Amino acid sequence: MNFTIRKGTEKDAQAILNLITELAVFEKEPDAVEVSVEDLIADGFGDNPRFKTFVAEENDGSVIGMALFYERYSTWKGKTIHLEDLMVTASKRGIGAGKALYTAVMNYAFENDYKRVAWEVLDWNTNAIQFYENSGAAVFEDWRVAQMNQENLRKFINENI
Amino acid sequence: MNFTIRKGTEKDAQAILNLITELAVFEKEPDAVEVSVEDLIADGFGDNPRFKTFVAEENDGSVIGMALFYERYSTWKGKTIHLEDLMVTASKRGIGAGKALYTAVMNYAFENDYKRVAWEVLDWNTNAIQFYENSGAAVFEDWRVAQMNQENLRKFINENI
Repeated sequence: MNFTIRKGTEKDAQAILNLITELAVFEKEPDAVEVSVEDLIADGFGDNPRFKTFVAEENDGSVIGMALFYERYSTWKGKTIHLEDLMVTASKRGIGAGKALYTAVMNYAFENDYKRVAWEVLDWNTNAIQFYENSGAAVFEDWRVAQMNQENLRKFINENI
Repeated sequence: MNFTIRKGTEKDAQAILNLITELAVFEKEPDAVEVSVEDLIADGFGDNPRFKTFVAEENDGSVIGMALFYERYSTWKGKTIHLEDLMVTASKRGIGAGKALYTAVMNYAFENDYKRVAWEVLDWNTNAIQFYENSGAAVFEDWRVAQMNQENLRKFINENI
């Protein structure tokens, strides 16, 4: 392998943001990313981090991929891990970095006795879905993701509180 | 209203577990609940709680509904709230307890500057979906929920580490 997997640090924040943005473009939401590199540093690498990361680093020191994850809680199973983002930059696909990052997250969950790892995938991303299913994951057809964004949250509160 | 909304406490753990179990039956997964009341107390009401709750309490002191939620992190928006469970016991539907619990969670998110509230809903639960959409939430058709359970996690790790 021409890369290694290690924990992300504050110094990786810009590279992580670049990968977040590349993933948003891939997911056809190019304007969705509102977080800044300062936000990522404050939210992920301070005293009370909201997420953890693994990065894939090439031998020349460049970060070519990342996995970003955090804890959730299942009222059925107990503490779980949510894999928010898994991304390898387009020019570095096919060398195993994505699987290595995925494996690192799964191993973190296994070693720390988490009861489940969950994530979300777009239904047209069939390559990813096939990879996940081959790894032993289930991709559910009957659950829908619901979201109240901040603008509609404000409207709802103004009308109901 | 014949009920009030308040924060859940350790003393509500059994009532919360009863509602979790009733919801699992409603969701056609009657055997899915593996957490115990002791787990809920340790995980939700200790020094470092993994979730927060609101409960709907009738004037006689009985808990007839609950909302259970916790923080997540969006790499697009920043800190968010995930509403894991929202449940009113079957005999107490239609008196507004569900909307009051939902509103309490939304208000918590709004007052604490969370960027989004997210949750999951079964595609056949059309009453719930209609309520959510009427409130201003989006229910997405194109995202799929993926999960690696602990048994398959163990297999994956044994094969790949």
